Amino acid sequence: MITLWELKGRGGRRYSLFSWRARMALRHKELEFESEPVCLTDKATIEFSGGRTVPVIRDGDAVVRDSWKIAEYLEHRYAEAPPLFGGEIGQGVSHAFNAWVDRVVVPAMFRVIAADVHERVDPADADYFRASIEKFLGTTLEETRAGGDQALRGLGRTLEPMQAALKRQPYVCGSRPAYADYILFSVFQWARVMSPQEVLGPENPLCAWRERMLDLFGAFARNVPVA
Amino acid sequence: MITLWELKGRGGRRYSLFSWRARMALRHKELEFESEPVCLTDKATIEFSGGRTVPVIRDGDAVVRDSWKIAEYLEHRYAEAPPLFGGEIGQGVSHAFNAWVDRVVVPAMFRVIAADVHERVDPADADYFRASIEKFLGTTLEETRAGGDQALRGLGRTLEPMQAALKRQPYVCGSRPAYADYILFSVFQWARVMSPQEVLGPENPLCAWRERMLDLFGAFARNVPVA
Repeated sequence: MITLWELKGRGGRRYSLFSWRARMALRHKELEFESEPVCLTDKATIEFSGGRTVPVIRDGDAVVRDSWKIAEYLEHRYAEAPPLFGGEIGQGVSHAFNAWVDRVVVPAMFRVIAADVHERVDPADADYFRASIEKFLGTTLEETRAGGDQALRGLGRTLEPMQAALKRQPYVCGSRPAYADYILFSVFQWARVMSPQEVLGPENPLCAWRERMLDLFGAFARNVPVA
Repeated sequence: MITLWELKGRGGRRYSLFSWRARMALRHKELEFESEPVCLTDKATIEFSGGRTVPVIRDGDAVVRDSWKIAEYLEHRYAEAPPLFGGEIGQGVSHAFNAWVDRVVVPAMFRVIAADVHERVDPADADYFRASIEKFLGTTLEETRAGGDQALRGLGRTLEPMQAALKRQPYVCGSRPAYADYILFSVFQWARVMSPQEVLGPENPLCAWRERMLDLFGAFARNVPVA
């Protein structure tokens, strides 16, 4: 059995977007895992991993930290299971796609949901979260809430290329979902778990894609504690 | 012998970025081709293709129009030659990447080089080009030139995720170049052929990648008429 260390939110929420990438990758590879929730401020629990951030997995003797490294590990260790990348080119382009999502889509979503996330992190993490996110965004949580409409329009502009792509193919990876879908989906699942806001208009092609993602693996991502 | 219909600029320039995607894909597949330059305003010459835009290729009985469709055609028709996508996942993610480049990177580059491009299109196309690009950008060519510094900063911000990705791997597609590299490279080659501006700072990781791209296939993209 694989163990996944991941962030713990209020009410049993598992909110780390990077952990959702690992969760979806594990299910894609048809692997069972048990969740070990940890606080953002609890660095001691994951010291064995050699780092200070989750997600971390332990699979037998192997310990792997960082969502991208976990995906690479699973792809090569479980090569006979359904592919996450499908070869070197798929892996390379997925890595470049990962850089775009992390550096453009994640900050755009953070501007929309930061104050909601703050209300739902573990109480032990609330002050730490506020300080680090206000530094990252260069603004207070109260100001992000006041600027919500503008942030939502910014997120819409950021996502426009994916709306166009998902009009022409059902998944980021083509006719079936694979790791690049989980990269993008993790941002929406983070919002779904931690914010009561609907971040997509109903006519947005990303809505239908998000529903398809929530249906995967027996509605694995749908049936979790949410905002 | 494959024939490629593509845009004709002044002084023998081949400037269409979409045609550069087809050119690089043809060379990647180790295929020879002959270039048939056409004007932007000359729709009659390519009427046989069923459309009004280049690039178009003719390969024996097959006629294929649109750079993405040309790449798909070449990948499947010449499956034994080096892969452009390397499977369905690579093709799907490359398609999503294509949407981002076309909708975000291309407009950002256009704001930097539009006035330079206008000076180098075929004289027969100059008025048509000005009217269509001023409509697309919502500004005059003279205004784009005046706002050049701001446009260059906007392009830099847009490219930031690719700078990050290319610090960690030598090509967009991983350790070797493939179609997603040609998608992004086409935007730089367009600028190189049509503008005397250096659009990248010397310390930018994209510079070294661009040099590697220019070296491919016996410096195929380097040894062409440029601005």
